[in-house]
Amino acid sequence: MNKRAVILLSGGLDSATVLAMARQRQYDCYALSFAYGQRHGSELDAARRVAQALAVCEHRIVHLDLAAFGGSALTDLAIPVPEAPGKGIPVTYVPARNTIFLAMALGWAEVLGAQDIFIGVNAVDYSGYPDCRPDYIAAFQHMANLATRAAVEGRSMTIHTPLMTLGKAAIIEEGLRLGVDYRLTVSCYQADEQGRACGVCDSCRLRREGFAAAGVADQTYYRVSA
Amino acid sequence: MNKRAVILLSGGLDSATVLAMARQRQYDCYALSFAYGQRHGSELDAARRVAQALAVCEHRIVHLDLAAFGGSALTDLAIPVPEAPGKGIPVTYVPARNTIFLAMALGWAEVLGAQDIFIGVNAVDYSGYPDCRPDYIAAFQHMANLATRAAVEGRSMTIHTPLMTLGKAAIIEEGLRLGVDYRLTVSCYQADEQGRACGVCDSCRLRREGFAAAGVADQTYYRVSA
Repeated sequence: MNKRAVILLSGGLDSATVLAMARQRQYDCYALSFAYGQRHGSELDAARRVAQALAVCEHRIVHLDLAAFGGSALTDLAIPVPEAPGKGIPVTYVPARNTIFLAMALGWAEVLGAQDIFIGVNAVDYSGYPDCRPDYIAAFQHMANLATRAAVEGRSMTIHTPLMTLGKAAIIEEGLRLGVDYRLTVSCYQADEQGRACGVCDSCRLRREGFAAAGVADQTYYRVSA
Repeated sequence: MNKRAVILLSGGLDSATVLAMARQRQYDCYALSFAYGQRHGSELDAARRVAQALAVCEHRIVHLDLAAFGGSALTDLAIPVPEAPGKGIPVTYVPARNTIFLAMALGWAEVLGAQDIFIGVNAVDYSGYPDCRPDYIAAFQHMANLATRAAVEGRSMTIHTPLMTLGKAAIIEEGLRLGVDYRLTVSCYQADEQGRACGVCDSCRLRREGFAAAGVADQTYYRVSA
């Protein structure tokens, strides 16, 4: 029997690649997505398509009302998504999002008897979010290994971040090698209901540049072309 | 202007005391409770009563479907609540619960500009849950201070556990001194809809013993008397 792993799956390019990498490593994959009040709801449709295409054992979409707290352009329609990179941590940062997502993954992993969680954070071509850095992930793993019955009983948890040191182009190359169909994914922070990307937000910019750098045709439909 | 704090408020005896202690320390208190699929739903009614009695600035009840993951007698009706203390971590343990609650508190605190979170964990008269221990709390705080924009910008977060080293009797004495009305609280894991306690679960046992040890009349209605 293969080992089980929980994969945080957003529906974007990075997490789809991570899921393919976890499969490649022979894990039985349990995908976890969140309906957290994000403005880009078509992201969840993408997560469903990716989970199906990569044949996960189970895909859970958990409702989580982060919009109730506000404080981010991704959950608060009153804060516009910026169309050019700014300085510092952008307004698309969602307070404590990865901590909340990883905490939920930890709970599900414990119930599943899984000792492995995969998350597609990246410290190279990323948007400057604090909860994507290696120090943060190491601290979460340390905390997780004090938090659970599983840990107390000797079954420790590993947080895998296979994209951490890869540039966007390298991520795309790896995903294509593993058969990921990136047409199924949605990266845009303000994709429309059909999943069509705006073409101008930071996430679109990173995606475009990644395909260009990889020398691969970008089949994404952008409402505003480059 | 007072500093703001987020207080995790379950509706039980411990968190009501913590809220009174945070008020005593001159914080503006923002209470956070979770409808997480717990079988003791009257706990949330108790949280509402306590939040009102102690005049919090705001009380949020966030829906969080931990029952979807299962794995605990508190969220899975198929697992009975034990009526006698067992060995090791009991089946009332909810996988990663405090990690999930603290992660949500961290998100709200960041939006509120709060640098203080209060949680009523206790390492003395407690049920043996791993996520109530001092090492765990220290590790969470360390992780939190790498996780957020606030931390990156120099506004660090402190996780306060003012009950950590107090026995149940000392907690009750402190609460009474601060004017907590414990008749408003519900500790029982399987309280009925009117909030009446079973009198036999581990949480009822700890509560009874606490009042007895404090030499204070226990005005809790127990369906099964001692």
